[in-house]
Amino acid sequence: MAMQQFSYFDNAATTKMSEACLETYVKTAEEYMANPSASYAPARESRQVLEESRMTAARVLDVKPSQLFFTSGATESISIVLSSLLWAKVPGRVIFSSIEHEAVSSFSSVLREKGWDVVFLGARDGFVSIDELERLITRETRLVAIMSVSNVLGTIQDIRGAVSLVRAKEAEYGRRIFFFTDSVQALGKTCIDLAGWDVDGASFSAHKIHGPRGCGLLYLKKGSIQSLAHAGGQEHGVRGGTENLPAIAAFAQALKDLKSDDERHIGMLNNLLRSLLEHSRVKVLTPGMNSVPHIIALSTPLPSEVALRMLQDRGFIISSGSACSNNARGKAESVYRSAGFAQEAKGALRVSFSRNNTLQETAGLAQALKEVAENG
Amino acid sequence: MAMQQFSYFDNAATTKMSEACLETYVKTAEEYMANPSASYAPARESRQVLEESRMTAARVLDVKPSQLFFTSGATESISIVLSSLLWAKVPGRVIFSSIEHEAVSSFSSVLREKGWDVVFLGARDGFVSIDELERLITRETRLVAIMSVSNVLGTIQDIRGAVSLVRAKEAEYGRRIFFFTDSVQALGKTCIDLAGWDVDGASFSAHKIHGPRGCGLLYLKKGSIQSLAHAGGQEHGVRGGTENLPAIAAFAQALKDLKSDDERHIGMLNNLLRSLLEHSRVKVLTPGMNSVPHIIALSTPLPSEVALRMLQDRGFIISSGSACSNNARGKAESVYRSAGFAQEAKGALRVSFSRNNTLQETAGLAQALKEVAENG
Repeated sequence: MAMQQFSYFDNAATTKMSEACLETYVKTAEEYMANPSASYAPARESRQVLEESRMTAARVLDVKPSQLFFTSGATESISIVLSSLLWAKVPGRVIFSSIEHEAVSSFSSVLREKGWDVVFLGARDGFVSIDELERLITRETRLVAIMSVSNVLGTIQDIRGAVSLVRAKEAEYGRRIFFFTDSVQALGKTCIDLAGWDVDGASFSAHKIHGPRGCGLLYLKKGSIQSLAHAGGQEHGVRGGTENLPAIAAFAQALKDLKSDDERHIGMLNNLLRSLLEHSRVKVLTPGMNSVPHIIALSTPLPSEVALRMLQDRGFIISSGSACSNNARGKAESVYRSAGFAQEAKGALRVSFSRNNTLQETAGLAQALKEVAENG
Repeated sequence: MAMQQFSYFDNAATTKMSEACLETYVKTAEEYMANPSASYAPARESRQVLEESRMTAARVLDVKPSQLFFTSGATESISIVLSSLLWAKVPGRVIFSSIEHEAVSSFSSVLREKGWDVVFLGARDGFVSIDELERLITRETRLVAIMSVSNVLGTIQDIRGAVSLVRAKEAEYGRRIFFFTDSVQALGKTCIDLAGWDVDGASFSAHKIHGPRGCGLLYLKKGSIQSLAHAGGQEHGVRGGTENLPAIAAFAQALKDLKSDDERHIGMLNNLLRSLLEHSRVKVLTPGMNSVPHIIALSTPLPSEVALRMLQDRGFIISSGSACSNNARGKAESVYRSAGFAQEAKGALRVSFSRNNTLQETAGLAQALKEVAENG
């Protein structure tokens, strides 16, 4: 069954690439085929498209172009930062929040194998605790990773508070601690203030904002990092490989197309769904405060997969939390559990909106959710 | 100046994405937006496109679909293999050919930092020597990387011979040695026999065969490898990150469109250029035997950058060897030198054809090269 037959509410997994982005992709592939790293005249034009795209991203994120690096996606952005730890001669401690995406948390195996002490920071109700972070930071801590927004619960983390604690500890210990935040679910959904937060690194993905799949950004405050290998030296040696110019230009287009009107529209969808689910057997897990408008985690008395199937039969596509792996349900469940939703975990669902969703289909989704929860 | 004004002969750097591939990209982005890792019905359709693309690639490469993994490009394919060495508790020896792309050779820094003994295998006249390989392999050797075809010289390496030596040494030492070959410049240009060669791993890129940038393949004989991190678990944990389905489907299209007619056409261009350059001041460095038809390395008495500029003024785009980095000229020069072309290195040039080149523009290029070499 094709997607067109469904109302799609799994936009935190991936969004539909916009017409404008597709047009930019095609135009760039056709008109700027030259490898930006070559020395001839058309290559200079490709380089210009590359640098204009970077400037667009820098303007949207309010940072310097020299602090941004195009990658093949957030997973690679994260991997560049975490694998760079492997250069260290002496391993130390790494602190991951317990709600990190697996792109972060799956690094714990290799880090532990190499002698690193990987500890996880709890996130009661979906929010990391700065007090607990303070207890976990030691003199040996070299990196802290806390995502800006939970992809499962939509909760917005206090990155500013966490970084300011980390900076105080740095001063106390006289050693640098790299603060990394995966901002994939924050982009276009809530305020991002990389410079103000004073994070050292952050990751972004194009396909979560109607841009192309296979394209992401890495922000580095210092403008560089020691990657495992510089390959062809592209992106100042931070990320090697021929630049994916059509996707990069399309990502810039997606960034340009981020509109506060769309944010407001998504906020209305969120309010509508919440109000229609009041006094029903559908429990809303995502708090109304300090959460992004495009994600609402819910639970029904039914096991998630049963509810998902029943909703699909009614023409609605949502998810159980994360689309990323065969054990995604397990991973999402563990996030729900670590947030204190142990009872709700087995029946947890995630609705995620985009600007393409309408009020009407959202009302339909609310009705379907209630039916499923009551008659299932 | 736009590319359209030039005759483009730098197809070993990147090729123009074909109309068919662009159409596939757009169609896939529009019709298969669902994340292939999700569980709902449209996601199953996306998964089907993914697996059909893999089957197409498996058919073209004559291997099992389960041995192929889609990546963001050859650089990432290489990186997955080489960074997996970092899991080792005890470092050993790694042998790289001296003509490897920087995507391979730039790993020597981190490997050496971690105690690995990285040695380089010479390539006199552009061909690695099996005898020298035999002298370099030790009981501690864990990996050998020899590219299938030199991106600078176009010379075809004796991968079968190299692997068979490595297998004999394995038997002697009773320890596995991973044989890796970067096949980027071989794909569609010469016979690739991964199973017959018995290599353990190989890398491929889509944008060198008129497919999209930002997409590649990793072949793994055993069907798995211990990646640094499995991220979301996609591609069986070998390569995490949301699958770039539009690019993957477009890559499959490019593979389907590989035609022996095009190979023959490129062979004719090669023969024409060679015959027109006979008895001129342009020296052909690439041997006529055991080389791919689409790459011809040349030299003129002028410094490369002067010749490139003069050719560009005449409407022809070629390169000095590799487009990948600011120090590409240095890298290409080192390949020329290690091949025994020390004298020619400073004036070395690379012409690389695609099916889009015509006999007429190739004759024009020959004329321009001769003028540049004689009057420069």
